[in-house]
Amino acid sequence: MANKITIGIIGAGRIGKIHADNLLRLPQVEISAVSDLFAGPELKEWAAKREIAKVTQDSSEIINDPAIDAVFICSSTDTHVPLIKQAAKAGKHVFCEKPLSMDINRTEEAVAAAAEAGIKLQIGFNRRFDHNFKRVREHVLIGTVGNPHIVKITSRDPNPPHEDYIRVSGGIFMDMMIHDFDLARFLTGSEVTEVYAQGGVLIDPVFSKYGDVDTAIVTLRFENGAIGVIDNSRQAAYGYDQRVEVFGSKGSVAVSNDHPNTAEVSTSEGIMRDKPLHFFLERYNAAYIEETQQFVDSLVNGLPLPVTGDDGVKAERIALAAKLSCRLGRPVKISEAVELQRQTEGTGSHV
Amino acid sequence: MANKITIGIIGAGRIGKIHADNLLRLPQVEISAVSDLFAGPELKEWAAKREIAKVTQDSSEIINDPAIDAVFICSSTDTHVPLIKQAAKAGKHVFCEKPLSMDINRTEEAVAAAAEAGIKLQIGFNRRFDHNFKRVREHVLIGTVGNPHIVKITSRDPNPPHEDYIRVSGGIFMDMMIHDFDLARFLTGSEVTEVYAQGGVLIDPVFSKYGDVDTAIVTLRFENGAIGVIDNSRQAAYGYDQRVEVFGSKGSVAVSNDHPNTAEVSTSEGIMRDKPLHFFLERYNAAYIEETQQFVDSLVNGLPLPVTGDDGVKAERIALAAKLSCRLGRPVKISEAVELQRQTEGTGSHV
Amino acid sequence: MANKITIGIIGAGRIGKIHADNLLRLPQVEISAVSDLFAGPELKEWAAKREIAKVTQDSSEIINDPAIDAVFICSSTDTHVPLIKQAAKAGKHVFCEKPLSMDINRTEEAVAAAAEAGIKLQIGFNRRFDHNFKRVREHVLIGTVGNPHIVKITSRDPNPPHEDYIRVSGGIFMDMMIHDFDLARFLTGSEVTEVYAQGGVLIDPVFSKYGDVDTAIVTLRFENGAIGVIDNSRQAAYGYDQRVEVFGSKGSVAVSNDHPNTAEVSTSEGIMRDKPLHFFLERYNAAYIEETQQFVDSLVNGLPLPVTGDDGVKAERIALAAKLSCRLGRPVKISEAVELQRQTEGTGSHV
Amino acid sequence: MANKITIGIIGAGRIGKIHADNLLRLPQVEISAVSDLFAGPELKEWAAKREIAKVTQDSSEIINDPAIDAVFICSSTDTHVPLIKQAAKAGKHVFCEKPLSMDINRTEEAVAAAAEAGIKLQIGFNRRFDHNFKRVREHVLIGTVGNPHIVKITSRDPNPPHEDYIRVSGGIFMDMMIHDFDLARFLTGSEVTEVYAQGGVLIDPVFSKYGDVDTAIVTLRFENGAIGVIDNSRQAAYGYDQRVEVFGSKGSVAVSNDHPNTAEVSTSEGIMRDKPLHFFLERYNAAYIEETQQFVDSLVNGLPLPVTGDDGVKAERIALAAKLSCRLGRPVKISEAVELQRQTEGTGSHV
Repeated sequence: MANKITIGIIGAGRIGKIHADNLLRLPQVEISAVSDLFAGPELKEWAAKREIAKVTQDSSEIINDPAIDAVFICSSTDTHVPLIKQAAKAGKHVFCEKPLSMDINRTEEAVAAAAEAGIKLQIGFNRRFDHNFKRVREHVLIGTVGNPHIVKITSRDPNPPHEDYIRVSGGIFMDMMIHDFDLARFLTGSEVTEVYAQGGVLIDPVFSKYGDVDTAIVTLRFENGAIGVIDNSRQAAYGYDQRVEVFGSKGSVAVSNDHPNTAEVSTSEGIMRDKPLHFFLERYNAAYIEETQQFVDSLVNGLPLPVTGDDGVKAERIALAAKLSCRLGRPVKISEAVELQRQTEGTGSHV
Repeated sequence: MANKITIGIIGAGRIGKIHADNLLRLPQVEISAVSDLFAGPELKEWAAKREIAKVTQDSSEIINDPAIDAVFICSSTDTHVPLIKQAAKAGKHVFCEKPLSMDINRTEEAVAAAAEAGIKLQIGFNRRFDHNFKRVREHVLIGTVGNPHIVKITSRDPNPPHEDYIRVSGGIFMDMMIHDFDLARFLTGSEVTEVYAQGGVLIDPVFSKYGDVDTAIVTLRFENGAIGVIDNSRQAAYGYDQRVEVFGSKGSVAVSNDHPNTAEVSTSEGIMRDKPLHFFLERYNAAYIEETQQFVDSLVNGLPLPVTGDDGVKAERIALAAKLSCRLGRPVKISEAVELQRQTEGTGSHV
Repeated sequence: MANKITIGIIGAGRIGKIHADNLLRLPQVEISAVSDLFAGPELKEWAAKREIAKVTQDSSEIINDPAIDAVFICSSTDTHVPLIKQAAKAGKHVFCEKPLSMDINRTEEAVAAAAEAGIKLQIGFNRRFDHNFKRVREHVLIGTVGNPHIVKITSRDPNPPHEDYIRVSGGIFMDMMIHDFDLARFLTGSEVTEVYAQGGVLIDPVFSKYGDVDTAIVTLRFENGAIGVIDNSRQAAYGYDQRVEVFGSKGSVAVSNDHPNTAEVSTSEGIMRDKPLHFFLERYNAAYIEETQQFVDSLVNGLPLPVTGDDGVKAERIALAAKLSCRLGRPVKISEAVELQRQTEGTGSHV
Repeated sequence: MANKITIGIIGAGRIGKIHADNLLRLPQVEISAVSDLFAGPELKEWAAKREIAKVTQDSSEIINDPAIDAVFICSSTDTHVPLIKQAAKAGKHVFCEKPLSMDINRTEEAVAAAAEAGIKLQIGFNRRFDHNFKRVREHVLIGTVGNPHIVKITSRDPNPPHEDYIRVSGGIFMDMMIHDFDLARFLTGSEVTEVYAQGGVLIDPVFSKYGDVDTAIVTLRFENGAIGVIDNSRQAAYGYDQRVEVFGSKGSVAVSNDHPNTAEVSTSEGIMRDKPLHFFLERYNAAYIEETQQFVDSLVNGLPLPVTGDDGVKAERIALAAKLSCRLGRPVKISEAVELQRQTEGTGSHV
């Protein structure tokens, strides 16, 4: 491949536009087209400002464009698998937002299609590129904390999503905690073998309507003997809470939140500081830039991908096991969830 | 009771001596006797310096001394129940170290004996008196964090105990995490209904020898709907780690460790500060003083006890359920553990 | 002026290139030319990548280009005044790096020329745009800290500059502390009326060679009654140290350093975190972007400038007084320094 | 001297009582008498509870009691010098609160009398015994920060004293900043050679009435070349503020305030923590215990005193120079202040 690549964006919602702008900062990248089901004048104007030549409602125009080397799939989750398959067939490299699908069988088909076609497939697990979590990973790798014994991840959103989103989200484990499952694998470098999930509807009864929970704690068992725990909440009054701790035989490394400034105000009321950065767009701003940079690097310079389709599959399996565990009220092995998945294969019924 | 009370100390190990010295700071208290199985010249000298008149190897000399109003039971765990029963019979108030026993049936007998005799029985859950945890409780009580959703407790020791201790400790849940179970009840003001315990032997294989683990994560379900998690390690390289977080509908309150000073050193190597206070004697120094003060206050001024025998029973039940859960590899309801306990009652076999 | 402006860059050293790249992120800006005394193939390549059409060694080609609306003066300090005068004559708006000159009389001439010509002149006091210092200013403005009583500014560099730079730097007060003098005015919204400067050569004797010091403490008296202190060091072993505190009748607001991550590592050695962001390029990265954005906004939307030529003059006067104070070993009023300046006017001798 | 000493307390105000209670914790100490000008039934009851046999209004009954080894002088400042002289004559060791007097000539007489009589004289510079400042000193001593370049001390009270106290306090430099002058010498191990003091009446006009200021910044020059700055305020809205930073060739060590707990509350309003420990009694509680312990150790075990009369003299000289500097509006050398003092000697006029 030349040291310049041409990219098409599929799905021009908020995250699609962010990826586009981040890609445009890279001298090796040209974006030649953007598609969106609802593409209209607003999107045309947006594209014109960025000198993106083509705007279309039809993603296949992008996938089948011979001048395009790679596509960013930022459309709704149900379109991910078919689009990856089409892209694989067309020989386009793919960056796809998480999760690949709500159905692990479909996800595996997509990943297999990509592998067969020999295209590169990167999953949008942006947190791996966060300055804080990267530093944790580095300390684990260089042995600062010794063998990991306990991993703790906290992930809380400032506000619950709208009901429209809840309905199709796939539930807290597949939609939200999937990031933490990936992070758990990334930080420890070890596979999760079993989970136990506890959930509650403590914030808004609407979650019950869709068999979902808004608050959850999941404990993890890792192949290397470590144990872990993740806690999620759909609503933290003080904003986006993203913390991690890895404790091991030689010590621990922990990261706290990022804040918009370091100002500490002392008055007769006490000592105060501003809340953490509001939400994922603020907190992971630099991580989004980094993940697209590394995707492009991988394509241009033949480097290995930092997050692969296989990582997507593995995180989804953990999410599936967690969902099952929460429903059954008992620990579930990842292998058990996978087995169950195999049995339902072809029946069209989701686990 | 007059506004002066006379106390006898049973068991003059490290903690017994600390309680004695803390009691001697209180103007309302006189200590007239101390007993220890191994009482010798060293203890006599210790007592003489403090003007404690009687030193004996026989605890019944203390319990049956009509001039004594209350006893501190600081001897080994297996002696707690018989001593409480004797003290109850003799009409002495009791401060007893945790746990009351390794057998919940025995514990309940002791608590019942105390209740029948109308004596006061306080359990040595010292952490309730810690400045940090008290502040967390206050914030929960005044509603700063709203309804509790998630409770997180971290409790890690700087070093594992000697094998001699491990052998008779009752295991990590009964010996170490019992403090955290009590803290969980104290902080939330809600009862635990179910636990799931995960453990591992990651520090020293000697723990396996006694069916024990050295690293554990336990998730909790509370009556009020909240969920919680406790993590314990027998060895944190950086020292004693005692942190708590309560997250609720309006926010969170979290306490970090206490340090010997606030010095921050900045060099070409990075920014450094000293490790936390070394272990429980340093960290809970003021809490030990406070718990004896409140016990004495309760006796002298007729105030309610801050921690009762019932609190001891409830914490032991949670520990029992956790032990069971860890063995069975599934969640265990507290009621289930209690039921199992009833069945083994009188058989002499421990759960 | 249209909502698109064309800019020329004069001086393509490190800071000139940074400004150029930051300007290129703004949709309203086009950079049509760049000049540098040493412009060569490397600069041509750099410009070509950015589609900057003209590269020249002659700044007058930029100043006299009728298609250019504004110039960024990023060349050496001795060129600032003549370039501003030329630009004023040519009707170009100017963004100029600090300080305007080493000679306050020359500086005033330049500012007067800009005023007469009606061009906008912004000075590169980048710290006003830093997220931390802006937050301090906001708290002062909204009254969180009440009337300011004490202002403290710490500013320390990770490494001293090379001797070549020291020779022409104008000394620590004019070269380094001038930023802090501006910050002091900005944070309090009050003018400095008197200073007392204490300096020492504690790091490297080379500073003595040029009548300079490498370590300095300057106390300030403000028009509003507040008092202040600035400390500077040319070498902090732990890196760039940029902190501020404003203490007033209702409390204080203080900002600490920015760090590359929030990771805290706990081991048997202690608790450690990474050093602050390395130097001004890292720390003030976003501030540089913000200052160019506001300059462009001012031009395109007719908004007032955030930092004016007058701010440059006032900071230089304080630096002059500090220099004098350090030499004389006594407090110096700003008015006294200005008077002295008037007397030397036209003599060509620097104060 | 035997390994038991008998002490008399002169002056039973708040600090006298605190010293008494701290002394009573030491097994080597017996307090046999307490005197106070206003001794009455309340003090008798206080003494009775502590088994202190004698209560008197006449301090000479204590100084002339042959059974007493040492006295604690905790009466008003104007009595310090005569009492030290009497105690020296009677061969009693002395612990005396700071400052020894408002008149450096009188102070020197007292110190000389103690030296001649061969008694030990310790000054109540309690901050040297604070856990934080001790840690700073240790780091300086072991070379963590290299050669000290800059020393910064912040000392702010939560509330100004009553007018009655202001009238006789000796002014902010002699009454309040004298602690910081001593700390500056203690932390660096170097003598102060020159000061420049800036003061303002920003809190309450009542200070002007007595020629005093309520807010002050003093810069210091040390014999070893280091420079320093102290800032004082009589009123910090957020409470007692006691911080120190020593910056040197290899880095810095800084201590922040002590807080009653580590609780951090996160709500929609921001992140909050409790104010620092309220005032000196809370903050220096352990330091008061430590200073009496070391005084007793010195007497019983023949160890050198941790703070001597000479330290008192040196701190007073700096305070005197600062007072002069603030009045004259220029830097003042310590030698200059001492010279001035010599000239006024015997005239009865205070500098």
